[in-house]
Amino acid sequence: MKIKVLSIGKSNPDFIKEGIAFFHHKIKHFCDFEWQELVPKKKSELPDLSKKIDAELLLQHLEDSDIVILLDERGKTFKSSYDFSEFINKKQLSGVKRLVFVVGGSFGFDESIYQRANEKISLASMTFSHQMIRLIFLEQLYRGFAILHHLPYHHE
Amino acid sequence: MKIKVLSIGKSNPDFIKEGIAFFHHKIKHFCDFEWQELVPKKKSELPDLSKKIDAELLLQHLEDSDIVILLDERGKTFKSSYDFSEFINKKQLSGVKRLVFVVGGSFGFDESIYQRANEKISLASMTFSHQMIRLIFLEQLYRGFAILHHLPYHHE
Repeated sequence: MKIKVLSIGKSNPDFIKEGIAFFHHKIKHFCDFEWQELVPKKKSELPDLSKKIDAELLLQHLEDSDIVILLDERGKTFKSSYDFSEFINKKQLSGVKRLVFVVGGSFGFDESIYQRANEKISLASMTFSHQMIRLIFLEQLYRGFAILHHLPYHHE
Repeated sequence: MKIKVLSIGKSNPDFIKEGIAFFHHKIKHFCDFEWQELVPKKKSELPDLSKKIDAELLLQHLEDSDIVILLDERGKTFKSSYDFSEFINKKQLSGVKRLVFVVGGSFGFDESIYQRANEKISLASMTFSHQMIRLIFLEQLYRGFAILHHLPYHHE
């Protein structure tokens, strides 16, 4: 199974970029992993228009066969990191070709993205910036694989 | 109210250090804030002994009047970042002189620390490394102040 993350907007500040590189390097030992940042050419301060611009770009980068999972505060929550690792494992076992996680922009997702998505997940009850969510998600993805492979990372 | 974070062990890798500096800079606009890393001179691979070594060092850095809050997976959870900002606000209003948050080492806390602590809090149902918790906590602390001061950060 290939795992791809599509994130809207550039990662910043530098510590976020470096953290992404850090986890990317670790995750790619476990799966075919790709991180892609989509930067819209146009920008708008109007939330609805901004979400539509992001959505158009996002949809161009999705294939019909992709299983698309949004990181969304209204999404399914997990009781633990084990629970999340099981979620990843089930996707692997069900023969998904490409699993695409989407980290939205600062205004969230347009309705067209909710319609295209297969699932929504939420990693915390508290709100984090869409930049911090990148690190939080990647750490949990790495931790999930470490659990599935019985590596000791989850005691670190 | 002064807020101090005591964390066991050095921050690493570099992106964690840089993230701490990033949030430290932001948080100090709102309160007298100090971040201190405590590095035990001795080390042990035995969890119980390691926790005792950490505890001895921690207790040396606490004053009797400190209100001590442990970041602990068995701690009180928050429904939202607003909920956490209210927690901070109540501490300020109750006349606490110094609020000390403690981020433990990889094995958690010794019983003597649980006995000294006033409260335990947990920021997520999922497990994060004690390094990532540093960033997660600081982002929520900054977000908490931004909410209390009606700043737009929580929409970023």
